[in-house]
Amino acid sequence: MMCLFCQIIEGKMPSYVVYEDEHTLAFLDIAPVVDGHVLLIPKHHEQFVERLPEEVYNALFSSLKMLIKPVQAAFDAPACNISINNGPNAGQIIPHVHIHIIPRPRAGRAVFSGVNRFKPRSKGYFEEIAKKIRKEISR
Amino acid sequence: MMCLFCQIIEGKMPSYVVYEDEHTLAFLDIAPVVDGHVLLIPKHHEQFVERLPEEVYNALFSSLKMLIKPVQAAFDAPACNISINNGPNAGQIIPHVHIHIIPRPRAGRAVFSGVNRFKPRSKGYFEEIAKKIRKEISR
Repeated sequence: MMCLFCQIIEGKMPSYVVYEDEHTLAFLDIAPVVDGHVLLIPKHHEQFVERLPEEVYNALFSSLKMLIKPVQAAFDAPACNISINNGPNAGQIIPHVHIHIIPRPRAGRAVFSGVNRFKPRSKGYFEEIAKKIRKEISR
Repeated sequence: MMCLFCQIIEGKMPSYVVYEDEHTLAFLDIAPVVDGHVLLIPKHHEQFVERLPEEVYNALFSSLKMLIKPVQAAFDAPACNISINNGPNAGQIIPHVHIHIIPRPRAGRAVFSGVNRFKPRSKGYFEEIAKKIRKEISR
């Protein structure tokens, strides 16, 4: 079966897109640890970030640089966690490079601990969040 | 008082360096969550990664791309966690951009939980670890 993120890139699987360009796509994590938890991926399929072609790697981190401020601003967050789980031993579940961008409006416990990422959330919830971020990007 | 990482860059504070180039420095975290926990920093002082000058930002992620494989190889790790705590609310303690590179030889619990980062370790322990990584970089 095709990689889940490749299906999202090809529009075969729905997602809440916040940003797209030639080489990269950013959309909402549907099991968010906080409101505004974004995943940024390269369109090129590759499991490990260090193996991305140079051009794609540079485009990925260029998109990251642009996204941080709007993702934070959409949730009045002065900070964010940025993380890549690079391989299954590091907690990577989908074998396609993805950067977590997690806005932190408040200080607190470690971001992945004790959070119910999988509680059901409505389509309206995600659409509202995605809209907020897209609005900040377009400023 | 001067930023701790700026002091390390200027050689006023000792550190276990694994890599250095014009714009970046990588050294061991002295409160490691696992053996081989590396910090990669820009030499330019800045608290938030998205505010780094373009040239420095690109150099930082270029060094990251190069370091992943040797840091993993030095500990027979097929994976690593890469993370930036971008601001105090995200757990940033030293207000100077740093990327954590954490090799993961084994799968297991979330990397920052339940680990005694602050248990005393000898100079010999750190020197041995730094040497292993430098050896892999020079391959």
